[in-house]
Amino acid sequence: MSQIRFATPSDIPVILELIHALAEYEREPHSVEMTAEQLLRDGFGDERFYECLIADEDGTAAGFALFFPIYSTWQGRSLHLEDLFVKPEFRGRGIGKALLKQVASIAAERGCSRLQWDVLEWNQPAIDFYRSLNANMLTEWRRMRVTGDALTQLAAEGTLS
Amino acid sequence: MSQIRFATPSDIPVILELIHALAEYEREPHSVEMTAEQLLRDGFGDERFYECLIADEDGTAAGFALFFPIYSTWQGRSLHLEDLFVKPEFRGRGIGKALLKQVASIAAERGCSRLQWDVLEWNQPAIDFYRSLNANMLTEWRRMRVTGDALTQLAAEGTLS
Repeated sequence: MSQIRFATPSDIPVILELIHALAEYEREPHSVEMTAEQLLRDGFGDERFYECLIADEDGTAAGFALFFPIYSTWQGRSLHLEDLFVKPEFRGRGIGKALLKQVASIAAERGCSRLQWDVLEWNQPAIDFYRSLNANMLTEWRRMRVTGDALTQLAAEGTLS
Repeated sequence: MSQIRFATPSDIPVILELIHALAEYEREPHSVEMTAEQLLRDGFGDERFYECLIADEDGTAAGFALFFPIYSTWQGRSLHLEDLFVKPEFRGRGIGKALLKQVASIAAERGCSRLQWDVLEWNQPAIDFYRSLNANMLTEWRRMRVTGDALTQLAAEGTLS
Protein backbone atom coordinates (compact mmCIF):
# COMPACT_ATOMS: atom_id res chain seq x y z
CA MET A 1 0.00 0.00 0.00
CA SER A 2 1.45 3.34 -0.98
CA GLN A 3 1.60 6.26 1.39
CA ILE A 4 1.02 9.79 0.16
CA ARG A 5 2.77 12.72 1.80
CA PHE A 6 3.83 16.28 1.07
CA ALA A 7 7.33 16.58 -0.40
CA THR A 8 10.11 18.13 1.69
CA PRO A 9 13.36 19.81 0.54
CA SER A 10 15.15 16.45 0.83
CA ASP A 11 12.89 15.10 -1.95
CA ILE A 12 14.25 17.56 -4.56
CA PRO A 13 16.51 14.97 -6.29
CA VAL A 14 13.61 12.52 -6.47
CA ILE A 15 11.19 15.16 -7.81
CA LEU A 16 13.70 16.15 -10.49
CA GLU A 17 14.13 12.50 -11.46
CA LEU A 18 10.33 12.09 -11.75
CA ILE A 19 10.06 15.31 -13.84
CA HIS A 20 12.65 13.89 -16.25
CA ALA A 21 10.87 10.52 -16.42
CA LEU A 22 7.55 12.24 -17.22
CA ALA A 23 9.16 14.37 -19.95
CA GLU A 24 10.57 11.20 -21.46
CA TYR A 25 7.07 9.68 -21.48
CA GLU A 26 5.70 12.85 -23.11
CA ARG A 27 8.33 12.46 -25.86
CA GLU A 28 10.13 15.67 -24.89
CA PRO A 29 13.15 14.47 -22.89
CA HIS A 30 15.25 17.51 -23.86
CA SER A 31 12.71 20.13 -22.83
CA VAL A 32 13.52 19.99 -19.11
CA GLU A 33 15.63 23.02 -18.15
CA MET A 34 14.76 22.75 -14.47
CA THR A 35 17.57 22.54 -11.89
CA ALA A 36 17.57 21.31 -8.28
CA GLU A 37 18.37 24.88 -7.10
CA GLN A 38 15.36 26.34 -8.92
CA LEU A 39 13.06 23.60 -7.70
CA LEU A 40 14.20 24.14 -4.10
CA ARG A 41 13.86 27.94 -4.26
CA ASP A 42 10.46 27.89 -5.97
CA GLY A 43 8.86 25.17 -3.85
CA PHE A 44 10.37 25.79 -0.43
CA GLY A 45 11.58 29.42 -0.46
CA ASP A 46 9.90 32.65 0.69
CA GLU A 47 7.56 32.72 -2.28
CA ARG A 48 6.11 29.32 -3.16
CA PHE A 49 5.16 28.58 -6.73
CA TYR A 50 4.13 24.95 -6.38
CA GLU A 51 3.33 22.18 -3.92
CA CYS A 52 4.17 18.53 -4.39
CA LEU A 53 2.85 15.21 -3.13
CA ILE A 54 4.97 12.06 -3.17
CA ALA A 55 3.59 8.52 -3.20
CA ASP A 56 5.95 6.19 -1.36
CA GLU A 57 5.82 2.46 -1.99
CA ASP A 58 7.86 0.48 0.54
CA GLY A 59 10.07 3.50 1.15
CA THR A 60 10.64 4.28 -2.55
CA ALA A 61 9.12 7.29 -4.31
CA ALA A 62 6.79 5.66 -6.86
CA GLY A 63 5.10 8.78 -8.19
CA PHE A 64 4.30 12.42 -7.66
CA ALA A 65 1.65 15.11 -8.14
CA LEU A 66 2.75 18.74 -8.49
CA PHE A 67 0.13 21.50 -8.34
CA PHE A 68 -0.49 25.20 -7.66
CA PRO A 69 -3.41 27.63 -7.25
CA ILE A 70 -4.97 29.28 -10.28
CA TYR A 71 -7.97 31.59 -10.59
CA SER A 72 -11.14 31.49 -12.64
CA THR A 73 -12.96 34.79 -13.13
CA TRP A 74 -16.17 32.74 -13.43
CA GLN A 75 -15.76 30.43 -10.45
CA GLY A 76 -12.89 31.76 -8.34
CA ARG A 77 -10.16 29.75 -6.63
CA SER A 78 -9.09 26.60 -8.42
CA LEU A 79 -6.14 24.22 -8.47
CA HIS A 80 -4.04 23.27 -11.47
CA LEU A 81 -2.36 19.87 -11.47
CA GLU A 82 0.81 20.44 -13.50
CA ASP A 83 2.33 16.95 -13.25
CA LEU A 84 0.94 13.58 -12.27
CA PHE A 85 3.24 10.64 -12.83
CA VAL A 86 3.79 7.11 -11.57
CA LYS A 87 6.95 5.20 -12.49
CA PRO A 88 6.16 2.40 -14.97
CA GLU A 89 7.22 -0.35 -12.57
CA PHE A 90 4.67 0.86 -10.00
CA ARG A 91 1.65 1.14 -12.29
CA GLY A 92 -1.58 -0.80 -11.96
CA ARG A 93 -1.71 -0.41 -8.18
CA GLY A 94 -3.98 2.65 -8.04
CA ILE A 95 -1.18 5.06 -7.11
CA GLY A 96 -2.09 7.63 -9.80
CA LYS A 97 -5.71 7.58 -8.72
CA ALA A 98 -4.73 7.94 -5.06
CA LEU A 99 -2.55 10.97 -5.90
CA LEU A 100 -5.31 12.60 -7.95
CA LYS A 101 -7.86 12.00 -5.19
CA GLN A 102 -5.51 13.57 -2.71
CA VAL A 103 -5.08 16.71 -4.85
CA ALA A 104 -8.90 16.84 -5.22
CA SER A 105 -9.21 16.62 -1.46
CA ILE A 106 -6.77 19.53 -1.01
CA ALA A 107 -8.71 21.54 -3.62
CA ALA A 108 -12.00 20.98 -1.79
CA GLU A 109 -10.43 21.79 1.58
CA ARG A 110 -9.21 25.12 0.21
CA GLY A 111 -12.58 26.11 -1.21
CA CYS A 112 -11.61 25.54 -4.84
CA SER A 113 -14.46 25.04 -7.27
CA ARG A 114 -12.32 23.40 -9.92
CA LEU A 115 -9.40 21.06 -10.31
CA GLN A 116 -7.91 21.02 -13.76
CA TRP A 117 -4.95 19.68 -15.70
CA ASP A 118 -3.81 19.17 -19.28
CA VAL A 119 -3.52 15.97 -21.24
CA LEU A 120 -1.89 15.14 -24.57
CA GLU A 121 -4.60 14.36 -27.10
CA TRP A 122 -2.84 11.11 -28.13
CA ASN A 123 -2.58 9.83 -24.56
CA GLN A 124 -5.73 7.70 -24.68
CA PRO A 125 -4.96 5.58 -21.57
CA ALA A 126 -4.68 8.82 -19.54
CA ILE A 127 -7.85 10.26 -21.09
CA ASP A 128 -9.78 7.06 -20.32
CA PHE A 129 -8.46 7.08 -16.76
CA TYR A 130 -9.48 10.73 -16.22
CA ARG A 131 -12.92 10.17 -17.72
CA SER A 132 -13.46 7.22 -15.38
CA LEU A 133 -13.10 9.77 -12.55
CA ASN A 134 -15.79 12.01 -14.14
CA ALA A 135 -13.35 14.63 -15.44
CA ASN A 136 -14.50 16.52 -18.55
CA MET A 137 -12.37 17.41 -21.55
CA LEU A 138 -12.72 21.06 -22.65
CA THR A 139 -12.47 20.36 -26.35
CA GLU A 140 -12.94 23.96 -27.55
CA TRP A 141 -9.90 25.46 -25.85
CA ARG A 142 -6.34 25.69 -27.15
CA ARG A 143 -3.26 26.85 -25.31
CA MET A 144 -1.26 29.81 -26.69
CA ARG A 145 2.26 30.57 -25.53
CA VAL A 146 5.03 33.14 -26.01
CA THR A 147 8.48 32.21 -24.85
CA GLY A 148 12.16 32.99 -25.54
CA ASP A 149 12.87 35.77 -28.04
CA ALA A 150 9.17 36.34 -28.81
CA LEU A 151 8.51 37.03 -25.12
CA THR A 152 11.56 39.29 -24.83
CA GLN A 153 10.46 41.27 -27.87
CA LEU A 154 6.86 41.63 -26.68
CA ALA A 155 8.05 42.58 -23.18
CA ALA A 156 10.34 45.31 -24.54
CA GLU A 157 7.27 47.07 -25.89
CA GLY A 158 5.44 47.25 -22.54
CA THR A 159 4.79 50.86 -21.53
CA LEU A 160 3.93 50.77 -17.83
CA SER A 161 6.56 52.49 -15.70
CA MET B 1 -4.19 57.26 -26.20
CA SER B 2 -5.02 54.67 -23.57
CA GLN B 3 -3.24 54.49 -20.25
CA ILE B 4 -2.49 51.16 -18.61
CA ARG B 5 -2.41 50.84 -14.83
CA PHE B 6 -2.77 48.24 -12.10
CA ALA B 7 -6.33 47.85 -10.83
CA THR B 8 -7.19 49.02 -7.31
CA PRO B 9 -10.05 47.88 -5.01
CA SER B 10 -12.21 50.73 -6.37
CA ASP B 11 -12.07 49.06 -9.81
CA ILE B 12 -13.92 45.92 -8.61
CA PRO B 13 -17.31 46.93 -10.14
CA VAL B 14 -15.58 47.71 -13.46
CA ILE B 15 -13.62 44.42 -13.44
CA LEU B 16 -16.82 42.48 -12.74
CA GLU B 17 -18.55 44.28 -15.61
CA LEU B 18 -15.67 43.40 -17.95
CA ILE B 19 -15.70 39.75 -16.79
CA HIS B 20 -19.42 39.58 -17.66
CA ALA B 21 -18.86 41.25 -21.05
CA LEU B 22 -16.12 38.73 -21.89
CA ALA B 23 -18.31 35.75 -20.86
CA GLU B 24 -21.02 37.12 -23.14
CA TYR B 25 -18.51 37.24 -26.01
CA GLU B 26 -17.43 33.66 -25.23
CA ARG B 27 -21.10 32.59 -25.51
CA GLU B 28 -21.30 31.62 -21.83
CA PRO B 29 -23.08 34.58 -20.19
CA HIS B 30 -24.57 32.42 -17.43
CA SER B 31 -21.30 30.81 -16.35
CA VAL B 32 -20.11 33.75 -14.24
CA GLU B 33 -20.62 32.96 -10.55
CA MET B 34 -18.10 35.55 -9.40
CA THR B 35 -19.16 38.22 -6.89
CA ALA B 36 -17.64 41.63 -6.03
CA GLU B 37 -16.83 40.34 -2.51
CA GLN B 38 -14.92 37.34 -3.86
CA LEU B 39 -13.05 39.44 -6.39
CA LEU B 40 -12.03 41.93 -3.70
CA ARG B 41 -10.91 39.25 -1.24
CA ASP B 42 -8.99 37.22 -3.82
CA GLY B 43 -7.24 40.14 -5.55
CA PHE B 44 -6.59 42.53 -2.69
CA GLY B 45 -6.74 40.44 0.51
CA ASP B 46 -3.99 38.75 2.51
CA GLU B 47 -3.53 36.01 -0.06
CA ARG B 48 -3.62 37.24 -3.64
CA PHE B 49 -4.82 34.92 -6.37
CA TYR B 50 -4.67 37.31 -9.32
CA GLU B 51 -3.44 40.69 -10.53
CA CYS B 52 -5.27 42.94 -12.95
CA LEU B 53 -4.34 45.70 -15.38
CA ILE B 54 -6.90 48.24 -16.57
CA ALA B 55 -6.64 50.21 -19.83
CA ASP B 56 -8.23 53.64 -19.41
CA GLU B 57 -9.36 55.58 -22.44
CA ASP B 58 -10.24 59.20 -21.60
CA GLY B 59 -11.04 58.21 -18.03
CA THR B 60 -13.18 55.19 -18.96
CA ALA B 61 -12.07 51.57 -18.44
CA ALA B 62 -11.84 50.27 -22.01
CA GLY B 63 -10.35 46.85 -21.28
CA PHE B 64 -8.53 44.63 -18.82
CA ALA B 65 -5.94 41.89 -18.46
CA LEU B 66 -6.12 39.52 -15.49
CA PHE B 67 -3.22 37.18 -14.76
CA PHE B 68 -1.44 35.08 -12.10
CA PRO B 69 1.77 33.08 -11.66
CA ILE B 70 1.93 29.44 -12.72
CA TYR B 71 4.80 26.96 -12.74
CA SER B 72 6.36 24.80 -15.41
CA THR B 73 8.43 21.83 -14.22
CA TRP B 74 10.42 22.18 -17.45
CA GLN B 75 11.05 25.92 -17.47
CA GLY B 76 10.07 27.29 -14.06
CA ARG B 77 8.19 30.48 -13.26
CA SER B 78 5.62 31.51 -15.84
CA LEU B 79 2.57 33.77 -16.06
CA HIS B 80 -0.91 32.75 -17.12
CA LEU B 81 -3.14 35.39 -18.69
CA GLU B 82 -6.64 34.34 -17.66
CA ASP B 83 -8.64 37.17 -19.26
CA LEU B 84 -7.81 39.76 -21.92
CA PHE B 85 -10.72 41.85 -23.12
CA VAL B 86 -11.40 45.21 -24.76
CA LYS B 87 -14.94 46.57 -24.96
CA PRO B 88 -16.25 46.43 -28.55
CA GLU B 89 -16.57 50.23 -28.83
CA PHE B 90 -12.87 50.65 -28.03
CA ARG B 91 -11.48 48.07 -30.46
CA GLY B 92 -9.12 48.80 -33.34
CA ARG B 93 -6.98 51.20 -31.30
CA GLY B 94 -4.28 48.76 -30.20
CA ILE B 95 -5.54 48.51 -26.61
CA GLY B 96 -5.52 44.70 -26.51
CA LYS B 97 -1.99 44.62 -27.87
CA ALA B 98 -0.85 47.23 -25.35
CA LEU B 99 -2.33 45.17 -22.48
CA LEU B 100 -0.71 41.97 -23.71
CA LYS B 101 2.66 43.68 -24.09
CA GLN B 102 2.38 45.00 -20.58
CA VAL B 103 1.70 41.54 -19.16
CA ALA B 104 4.69 40.25 -21.19
CA SER B 105 6.81 43.01 -19.68
CA ILE B 106 5.74 42.02 -16.14
CA ALA B 107 6.50 38.35 -16.97
CA ALA B 108 10.02 39.24 -18.15
CA GLU B 109 10.64 41.50 -15.15
CA ARG B 110 9.74 38.63 -12.80
CA GLY B 111 12.04 36.15 -14.50
CA CYS B 112 9.27 34.16 -16.17
CA SER B 113 10.26 32.06 -19.13
CA ARG B 114 6.75 31.75 -20.51
CA LEU B 115 3.57 33.72 -20.86
CA GLN B 116 0.56 31.65 -21.79
CA TRP B 117 -3.18 31.87 -22.18
CA ASP B 118 -6.07 29.91 -23.69
CA VAL B 119 -8.10 30.69 -26.79
CA LEU B 120 -11.34 29.25 -28.15
CA GLU B 121 -10.58 27.28 -31.30
CA TRP B 122 -13.35 29.10 -33.22
CA ASN B 123 -12.08 32.58 -32.30
CA GLN B 124 -10.05 33.10 -35.48
CA PRO B 125 -9.63 36.89 -35.09
CA ALA B 126 -8.03 36.32 -31.67
CA ILE B 127 -5.84 33.47 -32.98
CA ASP B 128 -4.64 35.64 -35.88
CA PHE B 129 -3.90 38.50 -33.49
CA TYR B 130 -1.91 36.25 -31.14
CA ARG B 131 0.02 34.67 -34.01
CA SER B 132 0.95 38.17 -35.25
CA LEU B 133 2.72 38.60 -31.90
CA ASN B 134 4.66 35.34 -32.43
CA ALA B 135 2.63 33.29 -29.95
CA ASN B 136 2.45 29.55 -30.67
CA MET B 137 -0.59 27.34 -30.39
CA LEU B 138 0.02 24.07 -28.49
CA THR B 139 -2.24 21.97 -30.64
CA GLU B 140 -1.58 18.62 -28.89
CA TRP B 141 -2.85 19.61 -25.44
CA ARG B 142 -6.40 19.40 -24.10
CA ARG B 143 -7.72 20.70 -20.82
CA MET B 144 -9.34 18.29 -18.36
CA ARG B 145 -11.46 19.47 -15.46
CA VAL B 146 -13.36 18.12 -12.45
CA THR B 147 -15.85 20.41 -10.80
CA GLY B 148 -19.05 20.30 -8.71
CA ASP B 149 -20.22 16.87 -7.56
CA ALA B 150 -17.43 15.05 -9.41
CA LEU B 151 -14.83 17.07 -7.47
CA THR B 152 -16.64 16.54 -4.16
CA GLN B 153 -16.79 12.80 -4.78
CA LEU B 154 -13.13 12.54 -5.78
CA ALA B 155 -12.11 14.70 -2.81
CA ALA B 156 -14.02 12.50 -0.36
CA GLU B 157 -11.74 9.63 -1.30
CA GLY B 158 -8.47 11.46 -0.49
CA THR B 159 -6.55 9.66 2.21
CA LEU B 160 -4.01 12.18 3.51
CA SER B 161 -4.69 13.23 7.08
